[in-house]
Amino acid sequence: MKNLLMTACLWVSFSGLVVAQQVDSPNGEMRMQFELLEDGTPAYSLSYKGQPVIGTSTLGLELKDDDQNLMDNFVVEDIQTSTFDETWEPVWGEEKEIRNHYNEMEVNLLQEGTEREMIIRFRLFDSGLGFRYEFPQQKNLGHFIIQEERTQFAMTGDHTAFWIPGDYDTQEYDYTESRLTEIRELLNSSITENLSQTSFSPTGVQTSLMMKTDDGIYINLHEAALIDYSAMHLELDDENLTFESWLTPDVTGNKVYMIAPGKSPWRTILVSDDARDILASRITYNLNDPVAFDDTSWIKPMKYVGVWWEMITGKSSWHYTDEFAAVKLGETDFEAAEPNDTHGATTENVKRYIDFAAEHGFDGVLVEGWNIGWEDWFGNSKDYVFDFMTPYPDFDLEEVRDYAKSKGVEMIMHHETSSSVRNYERHMDQAYQFMKDNGYNAVKSGYVGDILPRGENHYSQWLVNHYQYAIEKAAEYEVMVNAHEAVRPTGIARTWPNLIANESARGQEYQAFGGSKPNHVTVIPFTRLIGGPMDYTPGIFEMDISTFSPDNDSWVNSTIANQLALYVTMYSPLQMAADLPENYERFMDAFQFIKDVAIDWDETKYLEAEPGYYLTIARKEKDSNNWFVGNVNGDDPRTANIKFDFLDKGKTYIATIYSDAKDAHYRDNPQAYEIRKAVVNHRSKLSQRSAPGGGFAISIMEADKAETKGLKKL
Amino acid sequence: MKNLLMTACLWVSFSGLVVAQQVDSPNGEMRMQFELLEDGTPAYSLSYKGQPVIGTSTLGLELKDDDQNLMDNFVVEDIQTSTFDETWEPVWGEEKEIRNHYNEMEVNLLQEGTEREMIIRFRLFDSGLGFRYEFPQQKNLGHFIIQEERTQFAMTGDHTAFWIPGDYDTQEYDYTESRLTEIRELLNSSITENLSQTSFSPTGVQTSLMMKTDDGIYINLHEAALIDYSAMHLELDDENLTFESWLTPDVTGNKVYMIAPGKSPWRTILVSDDARDILASRITYNLNDPVAFDDTSWIKPMKYVGVWWEMITGKSSWHYTDEFAAVKLGETDFEAAEPNDTHGATTENVKRYIDFAAEHGFDGVLVEGWNIGWEDWFGNSKDYVFDFMTPYPDFDLEEVRDYAKSKGVEMIMHHETSSSVRNYERHMDQAYQFMKDNGYNAVKSGYVGDILPRGENHYSQWLVNHYQYAIEKAAEYEVMVNAHEAVRPTGIARTWPNLIANESARGQEYQAFGGSKPNHVTVIPFTRLIGGPMDYTPGIFEMDISTFSPDNDSWVNSTIANQLALYVTMYSPLQMAADLPENYERFMDAFQFIKDVAIDWDETKYLEAEPGYYLTIARKEKDSNNWFVGNVNGDDPRTANIKFDFLDKGKTYIATIYSDAKDAHYRDNPQAYEIRKAVVNHRSKLSQRSAPGGGFAISIMEADKAETKGLKKL
Repeated sequence: MKNLLMTACLWVSFSGLVVAQQVDSPNGEMRMQFELLEDGTPAYSLSYKGQPVIGTSTLGLELKDDDQNLMDNFVVEDIQTSTFDETWEPVWGEEKEIRNHYNEMEVNLLQEGTEREMIIRFRLFDSGLGFRYEFPQQKNLGHFIIQEERTQFAMTGDHTAFWIPGDYDTQEYDYTESRLTEIRELLNSSITENLSQTSFSPTGVQTSLMMKTDDGIYINLHEAALIDYSAMHLELDDENLTFESWLTPDVTGNKVYMIAPGKSPWRTILVSDDARDILASRITYNLNDPVAFDDTSWIKPMKYVGVWWEMITGKSSWHYTDEFAAVKLGETDFEAAEPNDTHGATTENVKRYIDFAAEHGFDGVLVEGWNIGWEDWFGNSKDYVFDFMTPYPDFDLEEVRDYAKSKGVEMIMHHETSSSVRNYERHMDQAYQFMKDNGYNAVKSGYVGDILPRGENHYSQWLVNHYQYAIEKAAEYEVMVNAHEAVRPTGIARTWPNLIANESARGQEYQAFGGSKPNHVTVIPFTRLIGGPMDYTPGIFEMDISTFSPDNDSWVNSTIANQLALYVTMYSPLQMAADLPENYERFMDAFQFIKDVAIDWDETKYLEAEPGYYLTIARKEKDSNNWFVGNVNGDDPRTANIKFDFLDKGKTYIATIYSDAKDAHYRDNPQAYEIRKAVVNHRSKLSQRSAPGGGFAISIMEADKAETKGLKKL
Repeated sequence: MKNLLMTACLWVSFSGLVVAQQVDSPNGEMRMQFELLEDGTPAYSLSYKGQPVIGTSTLGLELKDDDQNLMDNFVVEDIQTSTFDETWEPVWGEEKEIRNHYNEMEVNLLQEGTEREMIIRFRLFDSGLGFRYEFPQQKNLGHFIIQEERTQFAMTGDHTAFWIPGDYDTQEYDYTESRLTEIRELLNSSITENLSQTSFSPTGVQTSLMMKTDDGIYINLHEAALIDYSAMHLELDDENLTFESWLTPDVTGNKVYMIAPGKSPWRTILVSDDARDILASRITYNLNDPVAFDDTSWIKPMKYVGVWWEMITGKSSWHYTDEFAAVKLGETDFEAAEPNDTHGATTENVKRYIDFAAEHGFDGVLVEGWNIGWEDWFGNSKDYVFDFMTPYPDFDLEEVRDYAKSKGVEMIMHHETSSSVRNYERHMDQAYQFMKDNGYNAVKSGYVGDILPRGENHYSQWLVNHYQYAIEKAAEYEVMVNAHEAVRPTGIARTWPNLIANESARGQEYQAFGGSKPNHVTVIPFTRLIGGPMDYTPGIFEMDISTFSPDNDSWVNSTIANQLALYVTMYSPLQMAADLPENYERFMDAFQFIKDVAIDWDETKYLEAEPGYYLTIARKEKDSNNWFVGNVNGDDPRTANIKFDFLDKGKTYIATIYSDAKDAHYRDNPQAYEIRKAVVNHRSKLSQRSAPGGGFAISIMEADKAETKGLKKL
């Protein structure tokens, strides 16, 4: 129910009077002030525990081919505030229930002269602010092109930021930690090579952007509900320390094609003096709509293995033959071609993975490179690149399908699109139907390389619209989607929970492309994961890639214990055990944690958190009393001190602790781990050292007295 | 069967020796010479009855990002010649059987240094030449980007040409008659306004290009089998009088993305000293593949009326309401909106057309503006512009469907895409299925306005590929397609005979947009119709548009007799009677010809032809002894002298002659016509005057003696 809390005189604008109106968060710690500047420009500011965190920042949209932008000359017609409080149950997630509690301010603006209406809707939660632009159906505003969204985020100091360079095509960068004023000088060196990339500004960075003030306040900027709009970057005015939204353009330079009625995504600002609150905030989901369909019973978290890491590392190939300079689907004869003997997706090899999955209780097996077209799939701007239906001669789809079924394992489909999105959309119905006909319930889709239609970018409105189309179409077929190289998520998995994961960041694969920073995984939960789960593909046990792929001298900058911890710290309902079966078979005691760890949760406790440095999370398995703890550590050795007070009082548990050995190090000694068991209860405490690039993982299973016999208490 | 006709020494190339090889047409009147120039550049020339018509013209492709173009350094590896002769039956057409008879020369080229293979295949018919580039599957050539096709057509003099300005987006121009050297100065003034248009060169013109030499030789340049390639224009080097191919680029400027194995479309050169042979040539169809599917029984020529001219002229509107500045499909509430009272596609009005169609024996009724979205469909770069499924509140689709069925009339679907081709492809399966579910067997599709994806053009490879996709998808659903604003046809209707018509030229609608040149219809059969039938929409009886649409002062530059003749001269298996029922009702005696005229033919005789001036054609109705004759005339009055020797000997017919009255004139007196009946047989002759912009139409029905009583003999 809406409440009119203000009296009219406060917000009627007339010459010389600045309109200002405030709203507080439910717990009163956050305060947002809306004001209308003298020239009718809307603005807002935000404070936290009485301290300003966002200075006065103007709001508005620059339009193309329009005499009047939607930036100034506004008067306030009406301001309404209201309170909302609900609790909802996610289909999958870090907890059973999510509370959605905010105070809202709806500012109805009228632009003088044009008589156009615009609403700015603010929602202030205990953990931060969300706001968006809305355009009701009206006579004087129909279609318009946003040339630039002019949303400002005025910083109050030269904060420390964890950032990746702004790019229209990729987020697959290592994070740089620097002062805001250092971004300009560090930006070029932060741009590493990618198969498709487009920079745009010497101070442009991506969201979600994680910052920390010198006063110890954490600020995170992102967006929620990115639907039919282009993805937002942030460009820093490094003299005034003010960020401004920088949208991804289309091929003509236009940013967004907008229709009234319509609305922008939410712009979000998470704020806390405790980094753990950033991780615990559910603003991004809460600003999205509830589930769009009724039956969600077909959506199930999955743990999987796959024919993938062997191609990523160069041990085997996606393609089947070296004979063809080019492939024309339907014309090129694969049956007559000579195999290259490195093809990974053979019936025999896939069966090996199926056996491994069945033996160790995995739900699924992903196979990449199963379908014809990989000979020339990349870099050729090839339109009809895959048909998503036709296997290579050495991959017997029916045999694999039936074999997997007999073993109780699900096959996971792979749709690499090569960014040829028209081709994908043309085949989508058939491809999804083909999946259902053959018992595939989940698909990993990929958007490697430059986009077709040419000139479009991965994060432009055209593509955002495509990814959404693919998700919604998949839902029609009851297919779960794990989209790689698509736009970073913005919480739409609340509405479309069949979007079980995305990549949209530098995943584990980069450890096989030269390596990522050891502290990368301590940053990702504060940035990329704010929008939704990531298919990071943890679980690499062999750090020296050259041991099995001689031409690849990459090194995985992580310890085995760190890799185990990722199953807890890197939340996803879809988790891979990414390494080769033969690498796991050498470390079956450590592998036990991957087998045991849950993938869906009733409860999550953020025990310790400092972006770029460390992270310790405890989670309670869905419909179980088991808990799992993960700690990932940055560049320096560190001892975590954790309490087990999250455990049920009166219960006894056995904790299995997988930790770095004393001499472990991500570079020198990554496979040095220790495993020990101990009895724990809600009064237990643990001091546990983690190596550089290391960490620890703990499984905590409820136990009766007999089982605890002979075990030490923590 | 291929024959090796040459000895090796003739065509082995080595330094200093020019390779040259000739082939003649089956009747020996045409001779093509292939030669390899000293630098290894392939070239050809063409002569007719011993007279050169195409001088030495080089062939080749300029590639992007390639050290070596496919233009020179070639050696001839092999030349094979062969003869082909077959007769095939078109599904619909100007005659029952088409002979495909040519001598072929296949030139196998190898490029020195790159070791790339290219084949140039020439087919020489009695009526002209076709040739194309072919790229077999090979090691050294896979994907390549054609930056420019360098196919030359060297003219031997400053011919007279009938041309329209080169344009990547429209062919809807009036033809200009000029010398080749005058093109440059006349080009700008030949460009009239269009809703989407992109010029590219001061001497760029479109195909098919019709020319006449001072020696009276007619030359026509066009292309055949435009599949997965961009459409070709011609750019004139007006110093050397040489045309060169100019392909339509994509948004990045690239012309074609090519894959070996692959091939270019055919480039065609029709030649004769009798203009009638140009019309009679079936080279364009013959260079296309046979029908791609087995059952063609669902493809039927149609004569139709429709709710269309009243919108074109401004009498009524496509859109339903004036309330909305913009429409969001699925959100905007049409049920609650106020109708504008000018909407044409109301149930009531459509029923009126159905009644008219049923009464006068028409097969179908087209309705435009029946589906929601017309309020903001144009000029907004709107992605989700139509859903092709949802009718306006005042159009009861079920009621109309059932009413039409009860009257024995078929409804014709309309899919305006607004050039939002992704949206169309997304809805295509549903939209075609919706048609089948509701008894629609044919669709008129439209591509008005600038293309989405933005930056693409109507004639680029991306779009050519789309139009083809729509045709093939329609065939899956047994749907006939009449695509407007799509790329001009190139004979692919042989392969996909469900492509029953295209627009792709300045149609009758321009008579309601200010008027077309009176001689326009004497040019179109020599240009646009070379590639396939046109939905020109003849049959306008009221030339003064303002009589029923007061704000439109356009004048239809044509006499009623000329309009009747179009049903014969403007061949199409899909013919509209485009005017309003109330306009026909004032001239029911003339309307009788439209009711009588056939739309499918066993035989066609081109009696007289001079592009830009006159055209007289006689056609024999399919499976009937009835003949129909049409004459269209240009700017000056003219008397046609025709013989009826095409009639069966020994048979007697009654001819009904619909001609211009003596004082008829397209501008001053267009509705002055005369109708007379006469008895004719194969010895009959007729001298018949046609007015400026006029013509005549004759129906010739076999009759017995009793019926001829009292009628004069011709």
